[in-house]
Amino acid sequence: MHISKFVTPEIIFGKGALSQVGECCLRLGAKKVFIVSDPGVMEAGWVDKVTSVCRSSHLPYEIFCEITPNPKDYEITKGVKVYLASECDAVIGVGGGSAIDAAKAISILATNGGNIHDYEGVDKIQYPLPPLVMLPTTAGSGAEVSQFSVIVDSVRQVKMTIVSKSLVPDIAITDPYTLVTKNRELTAETGMDVLTHAIEAFVSLAATPLTDVQAKNALTLVAKYLRPSTASHTNEEAKTAMAMASIQAGLAFSNAILGAVHAMSHAVGGYLDMPHGKLNAILLPYVMEFNLLAAPDKFMEMAQLMGINIAGLTSAEAGRLAILHVKQLALDIEIPLCLSEIGLKEEYIPRMSQAALEDVCILTNPRDVTVSDLDRIFRKAL
Amino acid sequence: MHISKFVTPEIIFGKGALSQVGECCLRLGAKKVFIVSDPGVMEAGWVDKVTSVCRSSHLPYEIFCEITPNPKDYEITKGVKVYLASECDAVIGVGGGSAIDAAKAISILATNGGNIHDYEGVDKIQYPLPPLVMLPTTAGSGAEVSQFSVIVDSVRQVKMTIVSKSLVPDIAITDPYTLVTKNRELTAETGMDVLTHAIEAFVSLAATPLTDVQAKNALTLVAKYLRPSTASHTNEEAKTAMAMASIQAGLAFSNAILGAVHAMSHAVGGYLDMPHGKLNAILLPYVMEFNLLAAPDKFMEMAQLMGINIAGLTSAEAGRLAILHVKQLALDIEIPLCLSEIGLKEEYIPRMSQAALEDVCILTNPRDVTVSDLDRIFRKAL
Repeated sequence: MHISKFVTPEIIFGKGALSQVGECCLRLGAKKVFIVSDPGVMEAGWVDKVTSVCRSSHLPYEIFCEITPNPKDYEITKGVKVYLASECDAVIGVGGGSAIDAAKAISILATNGGNIHDYEGVDKIQYPLPPLVMLPTTAGSGAEVSQFSVIVDSVRQVKMTIVSKSLVPDIAITDPYTLVTKNRELTAETGMDVLTHAIEAFVSLAATPLTDVQAKNALTLVAKYLRPSTASHTNEEAKTAMAMASIQAGLAFSNAILGAVHAMSHAVGGYLDMPHGKLNAILLPYVMEFNLLAAPDKFMEMAQLMGINIAGLTSAEAGRLAILHVKQLALDIEIPLCLSEIGLKEEYIPRMSQAALEDVCILTNPRDVTVSDLDRIFRKAL
Repeated sequence: MHISKFVTPEIIFGKGALSQVGECCLRLGAKKVFIVSDPGVMEAGWVDKVTSVCRSSHLPYEIFCEITPNPKDYEITKGVKVYLASECDAVIGVGGGSAIDAAKAISILATNGGNIHDYEGVDKIQYPLPPLVMLPTTAGSGAEVSQFSVIVDSVRQVKMTIVSKSLVPDIAITDPYTLVTKNRELTAETGMDVLTHAIEAFVSLAATPLTDVQAKNALTLVAKYLRPSTASHTNEEAKTAMAMASIQAGLAFSNAILGAVHAMSHAVGGYLDMPHGKLNAILLPYVMEFNLLAAPDKFMEMAQLMGINIAGLTSAEAGRLAILHVKQLALDIEIPLCLSEIGLKEEYIPRMSQAALEDVCILTNPRDVTVSDLDRIFRKAL
């Protein structure tokens, strides 16, 4: 048993929790808050809800919404300029992983200066960030509880992963009601992202009993609720369960890190600006097939958690059923079956494999990975 | 679904984790640390280990060990005087619940002034505490992760429960190796304390999906590992599992609060200065019998988690088996069977029942409780 660390933000969870955002910022000492979001979330009305709560709390604010999916380095540079000019002293992120990761990245530069590229890698942040309050609206990224921020280097066209305890927000406010504005496709993709977090954290080389508990519970919830959550945008029970699954999978991967799925999807996402959840969803079963060899007992446990009858099966047999189950789930919720369907071309693969090998997430993958392994998995998933 | 809050410290877990205490304090900005412990823990050598790490980290320290089991208000008054005179700026608690609760209480007065009685109840602390790093040595109290501190009012002879998010330490360092110096009786009692935390948090009116996960895992671990941990003081697997169970049960009850067992044991412990874990262990099955009516499904789930075959049983039948299982566990590890065995007299009962009714823990008990209910439970447990 190695020495393991487990870090979490304060979590406020439940329908209507959004209304506590003003009070939370005041409690953290905020005098003026910088709200980071994106145009889609803005249009869905969630930024208005947040500013209305801020006004009730007599808390001035500045809004910055110039964030795209897979947020770019230059968006962060611009964001911190606006932050500094606006004399804010706390940050609220409202949205999916992109808005929250961008809010974190802007916060790094706000108190540490320099360029976001300076912080790529593990533990590069020196000074404490401003108070951070995150409101996820996708039940996907887990960024509201994690010590990660992923930003695209627009010149190198790769995703930079920034890992630091300083990136764990002070408070994560999860209001399942915010999930009702997600469309079917986004619900499916972000839900598969949760599943990927749970599975990669569970089989990670850095998994601990504290992360396993969270990963297993998230997996159970996704197996049960992702289908009904995708089927109906108003199913409150399913939305609440998926919101909880997102937090738990986030706590798991934040502390156990991830694996080859994320390394590969970061590579593709950085180069082709494709949706992170969709990439993970396509790659997941192929990486599971590759990893089964490394952790058959954990695969068997996953099969059980997904409700598969494993009586009389060996761990490898049960593990293969777990993989089939994940494939069927993706099929049922209409995830594309292969990467070529969403625009990956065969000639990109060598470059993608090399980038994936250099991603920090590859280090905790349970099976050793070479560049030719990655090449092979990409070709299977093409 | 109500809005729920979940707060945890940073957790560092694993054999040898104690060696990180200096680094942790420095990271929190400490210049000189105040080490709170008790004579028993001192004698077991753990304070020396901590001071040796502090010296390696060039971190000056002051030791305060004048703490007794069920720490008293006047010990806190004395402790804060020494703290202020020593010009420390951070606090380390080393020991069981008593040392850790005392370390928290001293920290309250260090930055908030006044008398510890001023803070009894919920959310009475106004100013942030000094950085707090806790090293539990008992795998019992969960105080290293909780938002509670329980201090005896020596005049009224009652336990004061102080609840505040400010009491959640910054860092909990759990080194399972510290458990090897516990004797059999202390291992049994503190282990039953863990079980009580898990069960009361699980059936609490304030339970949430986040606390349930922790409570269920703790329950499973205690059911499997408390017997072997009590049987051998060097069984590393069992000690590690019980250390993890203590953290998880602590996270559960810190956020879901407790119930009648704790209300009753606080009443008796404050009046008769008896070991908290032993009181909980004796009272637990009697309170479970009383509470079964309120939460039969949760009792059935507990039976399952403890490995009982519940096929074909109603939830009430399965729940009764769970209670029998807890009784058998207590018997196996030689917990006294009744309160009279450890000195409770019948004539104290009315006073004890009244004190229990006024304890904050009674508010989250799943079944309504009157003073005559408490009287009846005390008489059964006598």
